[in-house]
Amino acid sequence: MTLARRLTAETLGTALLLAIVVGSGIMGERLAGGNVAIALLANALATGAGLVVLILMLGPISGAHFNPVVTLACAARGQFGWREVPAYCGVQIVGAFLGVAAAHLMFGEALFSPSQHIRTGWAQWWSEFVASFGLLAVIWGCQRAKAETIAFAVGAYILAAYWFTASTSFANPAVTLARAATDTFAGIRPEDTGAFIVAQLLGAGAATWLFGWLLPLPAINSVDSQ
Amino acid sequence: MTLARRLTAETLGTALLLAIVVGSGIMGERLAGGNVAIALLANALATGAGLVVLILMLGPISGAHFNPVVTLACAARGQFGWREVPAYCGVQIVGAFLGVAAAHLMFGEALFSPSQHIRTGWAQWWSEFVASFGLLAVIWGCQRAKAETIAFAVGAYILAAYWFTASTSFANPAVTLARAATDTFAGIRPEDTGAFIVAQLLGAGAATWLFGWLLPLPAINSVDSQ
Amino acid sequence: MTLARRLTAETLGTALLLAIVVGSGIMGERLAGGNVAIALLANALATGAGLVVLILMLGPISGAHFNPVVTLACAARGQFGWREVPAYCGVQIVGAFLGVAAAHLMFGEALFSPSQHIRTGWAQWWSEFVASFGLLAVIWGCQRAKAETIAFAVGAYILAAYWFTASTSFANPAVTLARAATDTFAGIRPEDTGAFIVAQLLGAGAATWLFGWLLPLPAINSVDSQ
Amino acid sequence: MTLARRLTAETLGTALLLAIVVGSGIMGERLAGGNVAIALLANALATGAGLVVLILMLGPISGAHFNPVVTLACAARGQFGWREVPAYCGVQIVGAFLGVAAAHLMFGEALFSPSQHIRTGWAQWWSEFVASFGLLAVIWGCQRAKAETIAFAVGAYILAAYWFTASTSFANPAVTLARAATDTFAGIRPEDTGAFIVAQLLGAGAATWLFGWLLPLPAINSVDSQ
Repeated sequence: MTLARRLTAETLGTALLLAIVVGSGIMGERLAGGNVAIALLANALATGAGLVVLILMLGPISGAHFNPVVTLACAARGQFGWREVPAYCGVQIVGAFLGVAAAHLMFGEALFSPSQHIRTGWAQWWSEFVASFGLLAVIWGCQRAKAETIAFAVGAYILAAYWFTASTSFANPAVTLARAATDTFAGIRPEDTGAFIVAQLLGAGAATWLFGWLLPLPAINSVDSQ
Repeated sequence: MTLARRLTAETLGTALLLAIVVGSGIMGERLAGGNVAIALLANALATGAGLVVLILMLGPISGAHFNPVVTLACAARGQFGWREVPAYCGVQIVGAFLGVAAAHLMFGEALFSPSQHIRTGWAQWWSEFVASFGLLAVIWGCQRAKAETIAFAVGAYILAAYWFTASTSFANPAVTLARAATDTFAGIRPEDTGAFIVAQLLGAGAATWLFGWLLPLPAINSVDSQ
Repeated sequence: MTLARRLTAETLGTALLLAIVVGSGIMGERLAGGNVAIALLANALATGAGLVVLILMLGPISGAHFNPVVTLACAARGQFGWREVPAYCGVQIVGAFLGVAAAHLMFGEALFSPSQHIRTGWAQWWSEFVASFGLLAVIWGCQRAKAETIAFAVGAYILAAYWFTASTSFANPAVTLARAATDTFAGIRPEDTGAFIVAQLLGAGAATWLFGWLLPLPAINSVDSQ
Repeated sequence: MTLARRLTAETLGTALLLAIVVGSGIMGERLAGGNVAIALLANALATGAGLVVLILMLGPISGAHFNPVVTLACAARGQFGWREVPAYCGVQIVGAFLGVAAAHLMFGEALFSPSQHIRTGWAQWWSEFVASFGLLAVIWGCQRAKAETIAFAVGAYILAAYWFTASTSFANPAVTLARAATDTFAGIRPEDTGAFIVAQLLGAGAATWLFGWLLPLPAINSVDSQ
C-alpha cells in the first residue's frame, strides 16, 4: 500500500467516525424527548457498530488507527515507523474536522460551532485515563487474534465505555479536538480538551507499558497460529 | 445457480427487507408512546439484524444485492454482467413492493397507501449521498473478507447509518420507491423519491470510484489469503 | 451421541428458551413504566442473544431444534429420522412448560397461570406464517454455513422478527403451547394457540418447499467448502 | 505464561468487569430519568459487550475466569490445577474491589459505600441458581468451540441473563462481594451476599455435573476438529 492510499484511508475513516459520533448524537438528542439515556444508547450503538465496520473496511489499507494515541503506541512498540507518525496524526485531525462538518451539513447546522459542554475535573480526567487504558489494552490483548476479532472487540469496547466511564470515553485526541467544534450532544468546550488529551496519553501509555510485560511481542511472532 | 433461482432469491430478499423495515417501523411507532427515538431504535436494530440474516441466507444464491445501486456498482467494476442488470433491478423493485404489502397485511393496513412523510432539501439529499457512499465503501472495503464478515459489516453499517444520517439512510432506490407506498413510520412522499435516488446514485458512484483507486481489483485477486 | 443425551439437551434447551422469553418479558414489563416498546426491546434482545447461546451450547449434542416445526422440516428433507420425531417434539413441549415454571418461580408467580392475552385474527395468523417461513428460510439458506453462523443468524432473525411481525413471532408450536400457561407479557390465550400452530406449520412448510428448489441438497454435499 | 502474568490478568480483568458493571449502572440510573428498564438496558448491553472484550483480550493470558465458581468448576473437571485455585480466587476478589473503587472515582463517589439494596428470598436465590447453572452450561457446552465463540457466547448469555433472572444474574461470588461495597444501581446489601454465593455454587455445580454426562471430556479430545 502506498503512503497516499494509507493517508487517504486514515482521513476517510476518521471523518466517517466523527460523522457517526456527532451525527448520531444530534439525531439521538433530537428524538429522545429529553431522556438522555435513550440518546446515549443510540449514540453508543451507532458508534460501536460504526467502528467495527470502519476497521473492517479500512484496516487492510491503513491499519485503521483513526487515533493519534494508537499510532503513537504502535510506534512505541516498534510496529509502526516513527517517520510516518506526523503524517498519520495530521490526517487523523484533518479527517476528524471534516467529519464534524459532514455531520453538521446532514443536520442543517453551521459547518463548525464551538462547544459549550463543560467536561472538566478529576473524575472526568480519570475517566479518560481509564477509557484510553482500556482501549489500548484491548488492542494489545487482541494482537494475536484475527483482524475481524480485533474490529469487533474495539467496537464492543467503545459501546461499553460510553456507559462505564463518566466522560463517555473520548479516548482519542483527534476526536477530542474535533468534538470541540460541535455545540451538540457530543461536544466538549475547547478549553477542556487539553487535559483530556493528557489523560488519554497517560492511559494509553500505561496500557502499552503493562502489556509490554503481559504479552511480549517475541512470544507473539513465534506463536502465530491460534 | 440458474438465473431463475437468483432472481427468486433477489425478489424474496428484497421483499423480506422491506417487510422488516416497514413492519418494525409500524410496531415501533405503535408501542413507543410518542418517543420517536425508541421507535427508531427498534427499527434500526431490526433492520440491521435482519439485513445480516438476509445476506447470510441468500448471498450464496444471488449475491444478496437487494439494491439497484449495488447491482450497478458491481457491473461497473466488472463483477456482474451488464446483461442481467435490468432483471436484477426489476425484481428488486417488485420484491420491495411485495414486502410493503406483506408488512401492511401483518399490521392490518391497506395493501398500499401513499406516504405523506416529507423528506426533502439539501440536508436530506446530502444525507443520502453520505449514506450510499458509506454503504458502497463498506462493500468495496470488505471485498477481501469472508462472506459472513461482509454480511455482518453491512448490517452493522445500516444500524449506524439509521442514526448518523438525517434521512435515516435509505441508500437503496428499490427501497425508496416502495417506501413511498406506505403511510407509516418508514414512509417517504412519492414526489421526494426522485432526488433521493439521484443522491444515492451519486454517493454510490463516488465510493466506487474512490475504492477503484484505494483497493484496485487486481491486487485483490493476487492477495486472496487472509 | 446417545438418544438419552440428545433428548436431555432438547429438554434443557427448550426450557431455557422459555425461561428467557417469559422471564425477560416479566422483567421488561415490570421495569418499563408502561412503555411497551422498551419492554419489547428488552424481551427481543434477551431472546435473540439467548437463542444464539443455546444453539452454540447444545447444537453439538442434539442439533438444537427446540422447535417441533424445525424437527418436522428436517425430517421432511431427510436430515432427521422420522422415528425420532415424536420423542423430540414430546420433550420440546415438556421442556417448554418446565421453562415457564422456572421463570415464574424466579419472579414469584404461580407455577402456571392461563394467559388472557388475546392474539387472534388474520393479521396475527399471517404474521405467524411469515415468521415461520422466515425462520425456516434462515435455517435452509444457511445450511452450508458454519455452525456458529447458523446460531448467530437464527438469533438475529428472531430479534428482527419480534419487531417486524404483528404477533412478535412465536414461530414454534412448543413455545406457543407453553406461553398459554403464563398470564404475563409473553402470554397467549389457550384458545388462540391452535390457529397459531396451523399458521406456523404452513409457513415452515412453504419455506421448506421453496428452498428445496432454491438450494437443493445434492448441490450442498458437492460444494462443501467455504 | 508465568503465574505472575496470569494473576495480573485475572486481577485486571475482574477489576475492569466490576468497573463496567458498577460504572454503567451509575451512568444508566443517572441519565434514565427514573425509567429502570432503560437503565438496565444500558447496564446489560455494556456488561455483555464488555465481557466479550475482556475474555478476548485476557483469555490468551489467564483463561479469563474472573469468577471463583468458574475457577472451581475448571478444577473440578481437571482442567485447572487445584493448587492455583486459592491464588486465582484471591486476586479475583481483590480485583473486583479495585474495580468498584475505579468506577466510584470516575463518578465522583466515595471509594466504597455499603449497599442498602435488598436482594433476598427464595425467588432471588433460585434466580442465582439458574443464572449460575446457565453460565456454566454455556462454558461447558461451548468447550469445543473456538476461543472467540466462547467469549461471544458468555457475553450474549449475560446480556440475556440480566433480563430473564429476577436477580439480574450476579452468578459470580467475587462480583457479589464487591457489589456489596457500592450503594448504587448494581449494589447488594452485605448481609444478602452469603445466600447468593451458596446459590451460585449450587447452580454451577449442577451444570458441571450435568455436562460431565452430556459432553464427557474424552469425547472432546478425540473430536478436536471444526
